[in-house]
Amino acid sequence: MTDRNGIVFVVSGPAGSGKGTVVEKLRQIYDDVGVSVSATTRQPRPGEVHGKSYYYISREEFESLIANGQVLEYTQYNGNYYGTLKSEAERILESGKDMILEIEVDGGSQVKKLLGDNCINIMLIAPDAVELERRLRGRGTETEDAIIARLNRSKEELKELVNYDYLVINETGKSDECADRLLTIIKAEHMKAHRADKYIKTNYPE
Amino acid sequence: MTDRNGIVFVVSGPAGSGKGTVVEKLRQIYDDVGVSVSATTRQPRPGEVHGKSYYYISREEFESLIANGQVLEYTQYNGNYYGTLKSEAERILESGKDMILEIEVDGGSQVKKLLGDNCINIMLIAPDAVELERRLRGRGTETEDAIIARLNRSKEELKELVNYDYLVINETGKSDECADRLLTIIKAEHMKAHRADKYIKTNYPE
Repeated sequence: MTDRNGIVFVVSGPAGSGKGTVVEKLRQIYDDVGVSVSATTRQPRPGEVHGKSYYYISREEFESLIANGQVLEYTQYNGNYYGTLKSEAERILESGKDMILEIEVDGGSQVKKLLGDNCINIMLIAPDAVELERRLRGRGTETEDAIIARLNRSKEELKELVNYDYLVINETGKSDECADRLLTIIKAEHMKAHRADKYIKTNYPE
Repeated sequence: MTDRNGIVFVVSGPAGSGKGTVVEKLRQIYDDVGVSVSATTRQPRPGEVHGKSYYYISREEFESLIANGQVLEYTQYNGNYYGTLKSEAERILESGKDMILEIEVDGGSQVKKLLGDNCINIMLIAPDAVELERRLRGRGTETEDAIIARLNRSKEELKELVNYDYLVINETGKSDECADRLLTIIKAEHMKAHRADKYIKTNYPE
């Protein structure tokens, strides 16, 4: 479709929200998404192609892009930056395709700031505080202190909800239903009146 | 559910949008809606009960309520007013139930003004200008002048889209799919983060 613009859907959530599994399932049921090429400061390996495998840029350039609000989200790994450029997102959105980004809770507010209406951020949470604690304890590999710390951090992150567009409950054992809920949001957002300019111009010419 | 508030969904659309059929189908697939009792200035008939059949109020009171922004939408028939009171909508929304109102395009902007975030208005349209004209001509009962007038009015009403939240395409012969789209919007709106206060307070107590 060329009579629509794409949207960046950020899916985030505190520890215990189960966002990893849900986003994986969402990608299985929704594929109208563009392939986003990441930028990195690491050297290309043999056979890798600039603009296909990655955009290879210098450390100075990457940091300058961050400073200028041109990097939607990034991480450092083994001394190198990896991230998603705003320009790459814009290229995909203009082609009519969406993007799905699974990132940390504070990152979700940041992407929204950089992209405005072109970004919809969604927070996943466990159904309630009791279930959240059960999930965090359920891993069974952490000390009591570590569990309490994660629980407190999760509750803290929930306060970021004011900077989010949607809150989706991920009921235990129902990640398929939860992915369906995300798809419901994606479909609804594409029906927003303020996104209809292209459609109206194409189909109701003056 | 008591951990959510209801929402008033206004469904509107110019002549030729097919809103009547679609709203009927929506009511068949979505019944989490409250029963709204209308207000009227006509006299009660034998067996009718105030607050059940209608709220029976005087003409002066009705007009005073209109003037004070307490009537969401109204019409006059046989010299009497019939309308939906804002207080009635608020009663239903607080119980967690939604309302679906099928009204004229300019009424949709008005209800939104009176209810703010508690109202989501949705405009239905034919897929394009050619199909719209075909539908309006299809009735086969009107003069050319009347058809042109309706066509122009429909295009004029489309400009009201700036005051609407959603635009939904009602493809010809696909009113079931269109009703599904409305249901998608209803479900998504209930996941809006700014509506989650009750849920968070109930399920994540401080």
